[in-house]
Amino acid sequence: MQKQVEYQDAIKTKYPEQVVIAIAKDRNGKANPITLGWTMIVSGEPPMMAIAVAKTHYSIETITHSRCFTIAFPSSEMADAALFFGSNSGRDIDKFTEFECGTEPAKEINSVVLSDAVANFECTLESQMVAGDHVIFVGNVVACHTNIEPKKRLYTIAPGHKLGSVS
Amino acid sequence: MQKQVEYQDAIKTKYPEQVVIAIAKDRNGKANPITLGWTMIVSGEPPMMAIAVAKTHYSIETITHSRCFTIAFPSSEMADAALFFGSNSGRDIDKFTEFECGTEPAKEINSVVLSDAVANFECTLESQMVAGDHVIFVGNVVACHTNIEPKKRLYTIAPGHKLGSVS
Repeated sequence: MQKQVEYQDAIKTKYPEQVVIAIAKDRNGKANPITLGWTMIVSGEPPMMAIAVAKTHYSIETITHSRCFTIAFPSSEMADAALFFGSNSGRDIDKFTEFECGTEPAKEINSVVLSDAVANFECTLESQMVAGDHVIFVGNVVACHTNIEPKKRLYTIAPGHKLGSVS
Repeated sequence: MQKQVEYQDAIKTKYPEQVVIAIAKDRNGKANPITLGWTMIVSGEPPMMAIAVAKTHYSIETITHSRCFTIAFPSSEMADAALFFGSNSGRDIDKFTEFECGTEPAKEINSVVLSDAVANFECTLESQMVAGDHVIFVGNVVACHTNIEPKKRLYTIAPGHKLGSVS
């Protein structure tokens, strides 16, 4: 049986929520990672994925500038990186300098992929749409990578940015 | 370390993937549920949620017609309903007649909510955008409901529509 509640209470039922790290280079060539929970696949053929980025975030500028981005699925061992990338701004710091996190050049786009991630999806920017306080970016997946070792994905498992694996 | 692979192999790393059931009424007033894994929150203030629906699905017509839809988070006990709603078309049958699943009238939109779901989000259609073989529908969340009993969400935990709970 259902009971009507406020949005902020209802949305607490969403966990576990997947975590991705989106990476795009700014106009100075600095690769800037941002941790996001709001992402989905949007097309199977051709493969496309979408992310929703807060309008205030530096990643709006980096993605709009470079017109491409990587979507990485961080592994369950990458919680500290995900928290750092999600709680600092690329306007202020170079996140990959401040927090050690292995990267490799992307193959088809001007970005990087995360060496320790479960998987990486290289995307070219297909379209974008404003939705409330966020911008939805839709990307064409043009190259994919997986970790040579089996890894588990990282999820937000409870409010307050509590990260972990699920089974 | 990363290895370049085909999309179909890389995307197998996505599990567990959340499951939602989106419901919209057709021009005859028939409420039509569809099971989806491709969904995300897209705005916090105002609250908005998005779903990606395959262009061939009847739900394109129902949502376009009624300009509103419910997003339900099915509980882990609703795997059979989710499979049924996801593998039959509302063009052919009345899914809620063929498969017993308690519903209640929505409060703010002309749709229904699922009595046994973890939560239900009533949405008015804000915007839509084609992305490859799917259409992204963005909804304004105008009313929310949660189950009076604590329930766990349903996830796709492995390829082949293997559904279950996670912890």
